[in-house]
Amino acid sequence: MTFSVAVAGATGYAGGELLRLLLGHPEVTIGAVTAHSRAGELLGDHQPQLLPLADRELGRTDAATLAGHDVVFLALPHGASGPLAAEITELSPDAVIVDCGADHRLTDAAAWQRFYGGEHPGSWPYGLPELPGAREQLAGTSRVAVPGCYPTAATLAMAPALAAGLVQPDIVVVAASGTSGAGKSSKPHLLGSEVMGSLSVYGVGGGHRHTPEMVQNLTLARNAGAHPGSGESPRTPDGAADQVTVSFTPMLAPMPRGILATVSAPLTVPATGDSAAAGAPTFDPAAAPADATERAREIYQKAYAAEPFVAVLPEGQWPTTAATLGANTCLLQVAVDPAAGPTGRLIVIAAIDNLTKGTAGGAVQCMNLALGLPETTGLPTVGVAP
Amino acid sequence: MTFSVAVAGATGYAGGELLRLLLGHPEVTIGAVTAHSRAGELLGDHQPQLLPLADRELGRTDAATLAGHDVVFLALPHGASGPLAAEITELSPDAVIVDCGADHRLTDAAAWQRFYGGEHPGSWPYGLPELPGAREQLAGTSRVAVPGCYPTAATLAMAPALAAGLVQPDIVVVAASGTSGAGKSSKPHLLGSEVMGSLSVYGVGGGHRHTPEMVQNLTLARNAGAHPGSGESPRTPDGAADQVTVSFTPMLAPMPRGILATVSAPLTVPATGDSAAAGAPTFDPAAAPADATERAREIYQKAYAAEPFVAVLPEGQWPTTAATLGANTCLLQVAVDPAAGPTGRLIVIAAIDNLTKGTAGGAVQCMNLALGLPETTGLPTVGVAP
Amino acid sequence: MTFSVAVAGATGYAGGELLRLLLGHPEVTIGAVTAHSRAGELLGDHQPQLLPLADRELGRTDAATLAGHDVVFLALPHGASGPLAAEITELSPDAVIVDCGADHRLTDAAAWQRFYGGEHPGSWPYGLPELPGAREQLAGTSRVAVPGCYPTAATLAMAPALAAGLVQPDIVVVAASGTSGAGKSSKPHLLGSEVMGSLSVYGVGGGHRHTPEMVQNLTLARNAGAHPGSGESPRTPDGAADQVTVSFTPMLAPMPRGILATVSAPLTVPATGDSAAAGAPTFDPAAAPADATERAREIYQKAYAAEPFVAVLPEGQWPTTAATLGANTCLLQVAVDPAAGPTGRLIVIAAIDNLTKGTAGGAVQCMNLALGLPETTGLPTVGVAP
Amino acid sequence: MTFSVAVAGATGYAGGELLRLLLGHPEVTIGAVTAHSRAGELLGDHQPQLLPLADRELGRTDAATLAGHDVVFLALPHGASGPLAAEITELSPDAVIVDCGADHRLTDAAAWQRFYGGEHPGSWPYGLPELPGAREQLAGTSRVAVPGCYPTAATLAMAPALAAGLVQPDIVVVAASGTSGAGKSSKPHLLGSEVMGSLSVYGVGGGHRHTPEMVQNLTLARNAGAHPGSGESPRTPDGAADQVTVSFTPMLAPMPRGILATVSAPLTVPATGDSAAAGAPTFDPAAAPADATERAREIYQKAYAAEPFVAVLPEGQWPTTAATLGANTCLLQVAVDPAAGPTGRLIVIAAIDNLTKGTAGGAVQCMNLALGLPETTGLPTVGVAP
Repeated sequence: MTFSVAVAGATGYAGGELLRLLLGHPEVTIGAVTAHSRAGELLGDHQPQLLPLADRELGRTDAATLAGHDVVFLALPHGASGPLAAEITELSPDAVIVDCGADHRLTDAAAWQRFYGGEHPGSWPYGLPELPGAREQLAGTSRVAVPGCYPTAATLAMAPALAAGLVQPDIVVVAASGTSGAGKSSKPHLLGSEVMGSLSVYGVGGGHRHTPEMVQNLTLARNAGAHPGSGESPRTPDGAADQVTVSFTPMLAPMPRGILATVSAPLTVPATGDSAAAGAPTFDPAAAPADATERAREIYQKAYAAEPFVAVLPEGQWPTTAATLGANTCLLQVAVDPAAGPTGRLIVIAAIDNLTKGTAGGAVQCMNLALGLPETTGLPTVGVAP
Repeated sequence: MTFSVAVAGATGYAGGELLRLLLGHPEVTIGAVTAHSRAGELLGDHQPQLLPLADRELGRTDAATLAGHDVVFLALPHGASGPLAAEITELSPDAVIVDCGADHRLTDAAAWQRFYGGEHPGSWPYGLPELPGAREQLAGTSRVAVPGCYPTAATLAMAPALAAGLVQPDIVVVAASGTSGAGKSSKPHLLGSEVMGSLSVYGVGGGHRHTPEMVQNLTLARNAGAHPGSGESPRTPDGAADQVTVSFTPMLAPMPRGILATVSAPLTVPATGDSAAAGAPTFDPAAAPADATERAREIYQKAYAAEPFVAVLPEGQWPTTAATLGANTCLLQVAVDPAAGPTGRLIVIAAIDNLTKGTAGGAVQCMNLALGLPETTGLPTVGVAP
Repeated sequence: MTFSVAVAGATGYAGGELLRLLLGHPEVTIGAVTAHSRAGELLGDHQPQLLPLADRELGRTDAATLAGHDVVFLALPHGASGPLAAEITELSPDAVIVDCGADHRLTDAAAWQRFYGGEHPGSWPYGLPELPGAREQLAGTSRVAVPGCYPTAATLAMAPALAAGLVQPDIVVVAASGTSGAGKSSKPHLLGSEVMGSLSVYGVGGGHRHTPEMVQNLTLARNAGAHPGSGESPRTPDGAADQVTVSFTPMLAPMPRGILATVSAPLTVPATGDSAAAGAPTFDPAAAPADATERAREIYQKAYAAEPFVAVLPEGQWPTTAATLGANTCLLQVAVDPAAGPTGRLIVIAAIDNLTKGTAGGAVQCMNLALGLPETTGLPTVGVAP
Repeated sequence: MTFSVAVAGATGYAGGELLRLLLGHPEVTIGAVTAHSRAGELLGDHQPQLLPLADRELGRTDAATLAGHDVVFLALPHGASGPLAAEITELSPDAVIVDCGADHRLTDAAAWQRFYGGEHPGSWPYGLPELPGAREQLAGTSRVAVPGCYPTAATLAMAPALAAGLVQPDIVVVAASGTSGAGKSSKPHLLGSEVMGSLSVYGVGGGHRHTPEMVQNLTLARNAGAHPGSGESPRTPDGAADQVTVSFTPMLAPMPRGILATVSAPLTVPATGDSAAAGAPTFDPAAAPADATERAREIYQKAYAAEPFVAVLPEGQWPTTAATLGANTCLLQVAVDPAAGPTGRLIVIAAIDNLTKGTAGGAVQCMNLALGLPETTGLPTVGVAP
């Protein structure tokens, strides 16, 4: 017996990647594939890479079409998924609804109001199983809020260090994404002529909507940790005094897929025993970092030892986005720069495929948990490189 | 009357870009173009874009060949330029020698020893005219140490804020470069198959040789400033207690040319009057940043008002590397994120062409100063886009 | 004294490249820069690479704005230039009007009707100075029809062979273009996500509008030649029986600029004296082609010996589009494959920058001829590589 | 029970792709992975995308290491596979040996001598199951010569038309490949800085080693056909008088993977009833081609109706390489240009992933046939796009 699944938003990049993964999933049957303005057209006209589904006609994105499936994936613009989910549930009370959009990610109504505007649609179980407590919430759930692509990378990159009290809660994220992260929207700055051979930034200065999501996740990770040796007062459950802050600068890179995130924070205790070391002329970076880096590596290796999709690379090897192409993996590497700032700085590099682990792969991983299937079912861990 | 110029290292990327610019320079005549292993071959075999020089035979990179010119550009691996410059000077005592390599950039012998090893070759006038005091040193000089490409971007990005006391001397640089920054060396990770569609990092954790150069420049910029309102004690000339620290993470981007640097630092005074604001849940980033950002913009606009090659973009416009392709320009934009860290954070984005303003264009700009020509002679300020 | 120039369609790719070149042209002053829907906005918002013109306000594309200049460049969608040119001429009878669009390229009204539809707008002097007779027509003209980018490459590639009677008039053109050739139009298939990492075709089977333009040019070239040894009957001026046919397949390549055209045709006489050689199992391609190739190379070298912008590369060197980036050059190489087809086949490879020699550079070259300036004034012959 | 497989040449691009596919194959277990100079290192250092095999130590590429497996894939430089296969067979007489190199592809010793030099190593069953007769030869075989990537595309593109007598045996192939086709060899012209933003050609004029392979395949296809209406005399089995000729021009495209081939040939009978039509001014290309194209489409649809990996796209849709990325598919579309040449011309466009259907996927497809498994086992038909 297999589960029937529907995909709304099947002409977009997230929808296409969902269908690619679902075609390789042994426990599902693909039912309705729907679209908004393209309903009635063939899927093959919009997703020529999905050869086995080329002749499928696109249905309408409405509750009547989507109901009757065991699982419904919503890959829609924000604002659309809340009401539609309610309608589907009326018709199919047991349907698992997996929202790849932003609507139900934020628990903080004020943050929602600031970054998205309008009434807070409420929050659903957050679909990053690697976050403390998330896997338990996702098991058997009928609602999943799939994380944003940047927050997936940034959270996996810094959560262990915050949980371990290794770094101060003052995070700097500079992350570059391939253009598919911006969707299949015909905006001039996304034209091939504009993006090839060029790097650019956007949403600089705290304006990107993924910022509050990173704050939420990293604050949760920090408060979940034991923080031995952090030398700080214990954190309170409400977290106000302990909120992590994030400076997030997103870049647009000349490639279709992939996110490479550089996530860094000041250490809580100096990287070297010698407090005069940081930045002082007598410090020798060629000698000292090894220890601090080794300590950081151990924290990360322990944190992700049992995770099937997160790999801390061997020493000396650095993540590349190419190695994650089409795979549900997150590749990590860490380093401590003892000469950066008063205490030294932890730098973590994370690579994911924004459409796979960053969206559709993460969504299928959560579907597996929701349906009680092995979490890794149908999810590739091998990238398509070169 | 024109000046005769020679280019050593003419088969490489810096050498090629030098020749491209020199072909368009109205006051120079191109003399010897030399190479190491390729001496005797035609330049056209290695630089097919330099059509007017296609038939030039490559000479040997030695003092005999290079002497007798008014200006000699050295685009050689590090370690080679010091002895060669001395030999050339014996033969041509008045020759201006412009070193595009790293040998004479660092003033600190200890930093040289740590990052390059071997004896410190000494320092030459540093070829970033936009740095405080540099233009004066370069006027009429017979020696120029052309800056590294990343330090050019990072220094132009953060020097004004440090000089103005706007930020704390704890700088985070995440900068992505096109592959030509790695030179024309046949290393597997630089193959097109490896770099296209992929982002990667290298030299993470303080190991990149451009780090001490950024420290040197930004420390100089900071000490040159008056820092009204910084609330700090005055800086001493020796600067030991005031040294700027830099966390530098370089990325390799899938494009031939261009550097996009995201350079950030904590503000010295909170971005908002309300010290509780930073990171607190009641803070509204949509309302507050404007003022702090506006203050920062004014500092940058004032700092670069008279600079012919540095442009602070209009509000709302962000640098792209494509806009600098082949041009000797640096495009900047600044923002303050008041919610980042305890005091808010200044984020500056800089785009340059690593081969033009980042190497060969900067070198020609310095040659102009050395020869007493108008600084802008022969240097394009228009990029080749798209 | 300099000439004043206006550019209509200044926000597009052709318009931007025109302005880049005109900024470097010593004999012109840039006057009005106009747009359709973007009138009133700043040029810097649309062409950030044109730093010296960033503050220019875009005027309206109408006769009142464009009149009063010595030269007006029209970079507009087809259909727009004819009526506008007439209106401008009423106001400025002596203005030179250079049409970068397609309206006035075809002399054959029937071909116009078939490929563009609507009434034939008539033809203007054709702006490819390298075509037989064209330079004379362009000298002092007040009207220029700038060629299409593909026809520029294909014509320069095959005209000498046709004129010399080396090949049969049965031409196969397969040419790949960078995406800027499709303009700055926000169509889904031109998105960076779609074009990066992908090759595609369009207009296959004779449907591309540049096909009749190639037929026109190559037929003209063929009829202009003496064809010694072709063994054909003499061609008649009306050309009907002698029309060249062209099979043209355009490809879209993952790069912003550049055209690489592979243009081939059967030889008129077998490549080897041994008529059994072609395609027969005993033929040795490693030995034979040299002679036939050498004969072909001589024809091309002679044809382009005096051309400032067309280079037949040295033996063994093949054109790359990178070597032409931003330059007004066409790089050519030829080979004969004696084993292809009954008589052997001539293959000519041409590389140009579609926006420079293929559009804006060709336009400025013609402006120079129209104004009586040296043809090469202000036109770069050095590419921006890598 | 599963089959054990070994891969020699595991650090290269073909080797990596083989391992990616074999990791997803349900009937195999991966045994030895071997290398030449890298033996003793970890696979993860060379193929970071193969996460599940990251800790595998590379064995030596020798018979002792490779013997003892049910299947051995050889992804080695040409010349290496013949002797090694013999040695392996001595130790493991029943091993299936799949050679991804060129050694055993050509049946014609003279062609081998001309294009590769040295003694002809003999030919093995040719691994393109879609060729007439090939599937039968591959069933249960213990030797497979995997086709070259270009010949795979060109053969699938033109075989049906030749078999049906639709075209004359005078084929023109212009095909662009991603850079992985050139292997992981550190040659300057394959550097990212050289290939990004650039198109180039190589092996022009008949010199590419894939040319005789195309001739061999297409001659076989032609002789296998019935050719109704071709108006030619019957072909003889020895084929001398009937040999197909191929003009092949390969291009290097700025992308890691993918081949897009434009394959064309003159029709045997005019595309229109009106023999005056072709190229004559009264011909209307907008009206006429439909019929001839439709006839061609029917031939192709019929030829590939039962093929699991070859798709003739719906009318109006053209192949893109992106749609084949990582998939074992070949996407085709055909058109007739009735105005090209004396009789009109058939143009066929084929897209494949050079590493999948073009090498490793084709190899696994043949392994399936050799082992008696369903031919499609473990082979993706869904591309990774965008």
